[in-house]
Amino acid sequence: MNARVPIGRLIGIGVGPGDPELITLKAVRVLKTADVVVHFAKNGAGAGNARTIAGGHLREGIKELALRYPLTTEVAKDCAAYRDAMTAFYNNSAAEISAHLDAGRIVAVICEGDPLFYGSYMHLHVRLAGRYATEVIAGVTGMSGAWSAAVTPIAQGDDVFVVVPATLPERELERRLADADAAVIMKIGRHLAKVRGALTRSGRLSRAIYVERATMGNAVMMPLAKKLDDVAPYFAIVLVPGWEHAP
Amino acid sequence: MNARVPIGRLIGIGVGPGDPELITLKAVRVLKTADVVVHFAKNGAGAGNARTIAGGHLREGIKELALRYPLTTEVAKDCAAYRDAMTAFYNNSAAEISAHLDAGRIVAVICEGDPLFYGSYMHLHVRLAGRYATEVIAGVTGMSGAWSAAVTPIAQGDDVFVVVPATLPERELERRLADADAAVIMKIGRHLAKVRGALTRSGRLSRAIYVERATMGNAVMMPLAKKLDDVAPYFAIVLVPGWEHAP
Repeated sequence: MNARVPIGRLIGIGVGPGDPELITLKAVRVLKTADVVVHFAKNGAGAGNARTIAGGHLREGIKELALRYPLTTEVAKDCAAYRDAMTAFYNNSAAEISAHLDAGRIVAVICEGDPLFYGSYMHLHVRLAGRYATEVIAGVTGMSGAWSAAVTPIAQGDDVFVVVPATLPERELERRLADADAAVIMKIGRHLAKVRGALTRSGRLSRAIYVERATMGNAVMMPLAKKLDDVAPYFAIVLVPGWEHAP
Repeated sequence: MNARVPIGRLIGIGVGPGDPELITLKAVRVLKTADVVVHFAKNGAGAGNARTIAGGHLREGIKELALRYPLTTEVAKDCAAYRDAMTAFYNNSAAEISAHLDAGRIVAVICEGDPLFYGSYMHLHVRLAGRYATEVIAGVTGMSGAWSAAVTPIAQGDDVFVVVPATLPERELERRLADADAAVIMKIGRHLAKVRGALTRSGRLSRAIYVERATMGNAVMMPLAKKLDDVAPYFAIVLVPGWEHAP
């Protein structure tokens, strides 16, 4: 007999920005159908936010796979050694998942925020989507969590809204902030002094709100102009609300 | 005796992009605590998507308030009569909600997508937040629903991501599309021919994906280059994925 092994299925599941209640009904339901649940985590650290959020919804005895980043996210990205290490990491991770999919398993990759919006899941997806059935379950993004926790209307009507990484050069940040009605600046980390300069020169500093861990118990939120130092974690973000001309 | 009336609470609840399962656990829980549930709806049409999504989670006999837009959203927004009618509508709606809040009630306003991201809730919020306790529960945005349903990675790494309304002049759309790594063009409606022109001249047409009602039963998704007409509903969107240089 030559029974064919059924082909597996890859599912990227957004689990939301941090508050375990900001996961969707669909994410909870689909998590319970998975044979293998995969999460990303920092090297040497705990299981990470996505795993913590999903923790209460996993089936007893579910098979789990932790993918540990080989480097911290603060390493310079234009460095060839960084790129090579990350490419190898994603290739190896995709191969490991591929073995489960070939065995006919449903593999769910849990992702903080939304899987396809600046998420690590995308690196697995592009390596596997050509060969296997895939599905993605949208999640609440980190930035939605941030402006909701700060109760700050961000964009409305015909506003142009932009997401920029704090890693851009200061003049480039300034130009893009001045050119948008509303903005979110991500990955603040060691770039806060530069971000502050770009906001000041683009005339946006007085509107800027600094946010850390928006929907978690230890959130920090304040007008950036009132933050007295330039120390920030990598995942801090700055909101620049638009919507100056409402009906 | 002079028993003080307890002061009410205003809650904006995001119910997600359309699929009733893309509502969060928090939205479902908080909906059940409300005394009054408010939704926006088109004049003369049905109850609208937000009400349909939330329908299964309302307490039996809950008090409801439908706010019906006085005009369709396709009316020219630079027209003074439009602005006046909308301002009066939001003022009257806020006054009606205010009466419930003064009576100490918890008023939940249900919103498609995320309440503070291009949502009508914001017009109520800015009129009431100074006088009453407010809370906002983040939701999955329509655009996250769209790129997830299309299984299309949208932005990654140091990508600059922009949201632009299709109402912008063609040259302005072209400039902004050429200046971003990834983009979402909203409110396509009668602007599709112009959007197509701006995408073509900015070199982005081959990457553009046209989406209608992404997470609902009657979704339409296709490469924009393969769409043979320029007919689109108001809420159609176009995705322009970024992420050309992945590790």
